Amino acid sequence: MEAAGRVVSALPFELAVQLFDEPELGRRGEIVEQLSVAVAAPLVDALSADQQVELYREWSPEGRTKLLPFLQAATRETLRALMNYPPASAGGIMTTEYVGIPATWTADAVKRYIAEVGEAKETVYAIYILDPAENTLQRVISLREVMLVPGSTVVTEIGDDRAPISVDPLVDREDAARLISKYNLLALPVVDDHRRMLGIVTVDDIIDALVSEQTEDVQKLGGMAAIDESYLQITPLEMLRKRGGWLAILFVGETLTAQAMGYFQHEIERAVVLSLFIPLIISSGGNSGSQSTSLIIRALALNELSLRDWWRVVIREIPTGLALGTMLGAIGFCRILLWQFFSMKHWTLFGAALGQNYGPHYMTVALTVFTSLIGVVTFGSLAGSMLPFILRRFKLDPASASAPFVATLVDVTGLVIYFAVASVLLLR
Amino acid sequence: MEAAGRVVSALPFELAVQLFDEPELGRRGEIVEQLSVAVAAPLVDALSADQQVELYREWSPEGRTKLLPFLQAATRETLRALMNYPPASAGGIMTTEYVGIPATWTADAVKRYIAEVGEAKETVYAIYILDPAENTLQRVISLREVMLVPGSTVVTEIGDDRAPISVDPLVDREDAARLISKYNLLALPVVDDHRRMLGIVTVDDIIDALVSEQTEDVQKLGGMAAIDESYLQITPLEMLRKRGGWLAILFVGETLTAQAMGYFQHEIERAVVLSLFIPLIISSGGNSGSQSTSLIIRALALNELSLRDWWRVVIREIPTGLALGTMLGAIGFCRILLWQFFSMKHWTLFGAALGQNYGPHYMTVALTVFTSLIGVVTFGSLAGSMLPFILRRFKLDPASASAPFVATLVDVTGLVIYFAVASVLLLR
Repeated sequence: MEAAGRVVSALPFELAVQLFDEPELGRRGEIVEQLSVAVAAPLVDALSADQQVELYREWSPEGRTKLLPFLQAATRETLRALMNYPPASAGGIMTTEYVGIPATWTADAVKRYIAEVGEAKETVYAIYILDPAENTLQRVISLREVMLVPGSTVVTEIGDDRAPISVDPLVDREDAARLISKYNLLALPVVDDHRRMLGIVTVDDIIDALVSEQTEDVQKLGGMAAIDESYLQITPLEMLRKRGGWLAILFVGETLTAQAMGYFQHEIERAVVLSLFIPLIISSGGNSGSQSTSLIIRALALNELSLRDWWRVVIREIPTGLALGTMLGAIGFCRILLWQFFSMKHWTLFGAALGQNYGPHYMTVALTVFTSLIGVVTFGSLAGSMLPFILRRFKLDPASASAPFVATLVDVTGLVIYFAVASVLLLR
Repeated sequence: MEAAGRVVSALPFELAVQLFDEPELGRRGEIVEQLSVAVAAPLVDALSADQQVELYREWSPEGRTKLLPFLQAATRETLRALMNYPPASAGGIMTTEYVGIPATWTADAVKRYIAEVGEAKETVYAIYILDPAENTLQRVISLREVMLVPGSTVVTEIGDDRAPISVDPLVDREDAARLISKYNLLALPVVDDHRRMLGIVTVDDIIDALVSEQTEDVQKLGGMAAIDESYLQITPLEMLRKRGGWLAILFVGETLTAQAMGYFQHEIERAVVLSLFIPLIISSGGNSGSQSTSLIIRALALNELSLRDWWRVVIREIPTGLALGTMLGAIGFCRILLWQFFSMKHWTLFGAALGQNYGPHYMTVALTVFTSLIGVVTFGSLAGSMLPFILRRFKLDPASASAPFVATLVDVTGLVIYFAVASVLLLR
């Protein structure tokens, strides 16, 4: 860390600014904190506004107090304005360096203005026409459109007349990403309730946001808290914290299976053969649940489904679950009869090694497995598909409905279904 | 479908072109196939090259034969050139409509050229300086840079002198996305082995590609084949195919647990109490495995880890697994002793309801669960973290290492570890 600080101090200033203007540089905040205030302050002042905020977020309270008085007034103002927004909101990733012009300008005036101030702007390709008094957003034109018209054209004559697409600063960055992607924008204006221009979210920020969201999603789906650091950088303690929390919750949930199994202990004693298929039965419920969960998580994230559509999902998942369950049930049924057959006729070495004798009631055992699988897979599909809806309903991230979470929910029910079927068919 | 065709025929031409130039419009290919050739051909000719290719991919062989002769020669040429590349490659999503200029032009000439042809180009913000004879890519400048310099500046004097970043057409679209995101590009040039310019991949295409990749990843992690259609659009048969395949494979893999349980049937008969904790033990292995799998999948996707780093992961996962296993083991140990205590002292209704009597050897049972959990969680973490490496090594997508896949792998081993520990501690 200290060594990194010395390297930065020795770099040409322009290069250092370029380096720190990229979110890809790991631990930027820590490195800047290591620098002397005389080196750090001008560096931070020279960064783009969104990167200043990102750095600022990474500093320790002491670092902030140390550095803040040495920053330019404009930088402090930006930090104060932007730090109000949560890091994963449009306001949290926006920048205030956009090209804003009055409605009276001509195309030539815009080109001259860009030639003058273009270097300092995050993008010059989206141009925002603002009311000079109120600073409200009136229209958005693109530099391409400006290039295509005669120089004397007034900017309000350029492009189409539709109201510009904009977002509230508190909108989630994923929703901002969706708008940028849907309308193929280069930047998305962020406005307040009075349509006053606050800043822009650029396509670069959105790509970075999409990549982070994807990482978060994959980690949550794996049944753990999302981590910011890369795998090799995270400290062992942090790793245990991020994984241990969820693992312990899932474990405690899963102890309910021991509870359930306790109630069926008597049944197991009567027919130990039942215990052989417990892992098979409950994992099938978990697997089908995990499939429907991942389908629904994605459909919700892409707005293909809304909360109100839950019943459409129910009427699709029940037949799907029944069909999949019947398929697995049939495989299980054949598997049991086949192995029983192997155990009775030892005519091949292969059969002798594989064969398992399930006792005199092997046919009833096979039927029990068949019937339970239909029930368990259908229940799994249904529970797995409803979980993301329930999480969304309670304003939680549907991506938290990880495969392990679904499996834990479905395991107890799977056991209950299996032993209920066994009581009717096998243990009368 | 037919109705959609009639609607399109009735639309103003410009609006129809805008509509079909967006990949968001579902089933575009089918709708265009429904149109009469006289309506469809000019519409397709007017689309951007990358969208022409995407539409063309969606057509049936009959549709292609019907429409192809009526398209302009230039469109047919584009289709022939671009259809050579796989849909998920840079070549498959690139467009041939970029701004290419000779090295001798001035900034003013570039601006005049853009004013003239800009409308037809996918982007005018990235400008490619090409060798006029060979069509090889020499430099990339941005329109912003052109705007900042005096009009008489020769383009080779603009911007920095570094060799432009470019990709081979066969590079995966995800790698192209990574380059665009890393270098904050608006477009990425695609060149052949001789650095001849083939086309550009724009940031819009990349966002669309990222979103599709994310959907694919989430679905694969849920243990199913990726689907293209949205949840409510996919036909029931297609849904069964995409889910049933993986579900059946996982089920057959999971039947190994029944095989394993068969070998331990004798142990279960001797101590039925052992069966109570089977779901708990194996699911803990699956959960910890699913966590490390998702961590490694993401680290590999972001190039934070390469194949050679597998041993770094091993030396991190073993202590992590031991620590997490000890934690879960301790919870399990306390849980067993507590419930045993409840069952012995019925002084509360709560205790009476919860209590479970694990027999005279309850302490040994608790120790068996404790010890097995350490082994199972450590093995799960290790197996889960290695699986994505193995898949990548065999050129398969690491994201196929879904939580259900990992759980299936780990379940049999979990049973073996559990019964091995039980044989030593409990069943001597």
